[in-house]
Amino acid sequence: MASSLSFEDPIFSSFAFYATVVILKMMVMSLLTARVRLSKGIFANAEDGKLHKDPKVTTTHPEVERVRRCHQNDIENIVPFVLLGILYVLTGPDPWWAVLRFRVFAASRILHTICYLTPIPQPSRALMFGIGLSINVQMAVSVLRAM
Amino acid sequence: MASSLSFEDPIFSSFAFYATVVILKMMVMSLLTARVRLSKGIFANAEDGKLHKDPKVTTTHPEVERVRRCHQNDIENIVPFVLLGILYVLTGPDPWWAVLRFRVFAASRILHTICYLTPIPQPSRALMFGIGLSINVQMAVSVLRAM
Amino acid sequence: MASSLSFEDPIFSSFAFYATVVILKMMVMSLLTARVRLSKGIFANAEDGKLHKDPKVTTTHPEVERVRRCHQNDIENIVPFVLLGILYVLTGPDPWWAVLRFRVFAASRILHTICYLTPIPQPSRALMFGIGLSINVQMAVSVLRAM
Repeated sequence: MASSLSFEDPIFSSFAFYATVVILKMMVMSLLTARVRLSKGIFANAEDGKLHKDPKVTTTHPEVERVRRCHQNDIENIVPFVLLGILYVLTGPDPWWAVLRFRVFAASRILHTICYLTPIPQPSRALMFGIGLSINVQMAVSVLRAM
Repeated sequence: MASSLSFEDPIFSSFAFYATVVILKMMVMSLLTARVRLSKGIFANAEDGKLHKDPKVTTTHPEVERVRRCHQNDIENIVPFVLLGILYVLTGPDPWWAVLRFRVFAASRILHTICYLTPIPQPSRALMFGIGLSINVQMAVSVLRAM
Repeated sequence: MASSLSFEDPIFSSFAFYATVVILKMMVMSLLTARVRLSKGIFANAEDGKLHKDPKVTTTHPEVERVRRCHQNDIENIVPFVLLGILYVLTGPDPWWAVLRFRVFAASRILHTICYLTPIPQPSRALMFGIGLSINVQMAVSVLRAM
């Protein structure tokens, strides 16, 4: 239980790195949504399309909605990872397992996005989702056992 | 102001427990959504239904959307609870009140989900939502007063 | 690298203040959604409108959806701000730049909401979104450079 939230702690330092990577990845989804909206002329608000030559106001365009579902899935999984991760680091976990979990989670979420947007045939995406969820559950169990 | 983020601190330890419980509860919503999707054959992406015998691609199925609204309400309330909770623990709150707030919040969100999915008649769900929101506001005020 | 998560640290104290302000702002969106729903009689669940004299069950009402998109945009940007902010404070940043970033972020998100709901003509809202995103990216880069 000697761990603390300090960049001098190698477990925290590793967590901070991978947490930042997945948060950046999540924020990239906003830019991807904007890119699809602008290239297709699909806007959710009437005032957004004013400068576009052929704007359509709809919230049901399949391509835009796919990117948004991918973003939503990130919120549903990456935010819990960062929140649980802070608590997990403070339990003083085994460094080898901790860093492995952070790396596998980050890889699974990057691959999840690639699977979602390409799209690579299922069950690739479901598998990547499951791996990320499993890491979150493992960290949650570690926190509950630290009581 | 002696509190710190350490499992040796009983307030933090209690927070870590209830925060993990509500994050797990929030993540269970993903699995509930998947279960409703698979049992009804309702998919948001064409590639997801390939192995189902009678897949329908729609994002407006009432039962699926109810589970998703419940999940979204969790994101809108549980994520602020965990973020504000970290700051609140660091203000060195009264232990009795702090632990009571964590417990009431966790109970209100579990009951909120039960009210939403059963569904138990309103205003049960509105009340559970209000209790959770009130705890979040109380913690926010404590943080602002700690300046 | 001397910073720590303590209200005795002026950078953390400033972060805790602005993080709480933007989380409160985000939670106000729930109440704004409820107010528009009740005033227009627009409900997402059949059981919610029982006490309203003229309830309509729909999830596509333009005014309700506008408030909800504004709330969703907050989730997509304010949650990353608070998560990255905790890591950023721990890098021991320059106090002047750190406090400036927290203030500019908070101002940009409050103005973003005003632009979205008034609505003030674009590109005001896009600019406010971009400023907030830019602060998040700056904090993320600082964290990655602290490794």
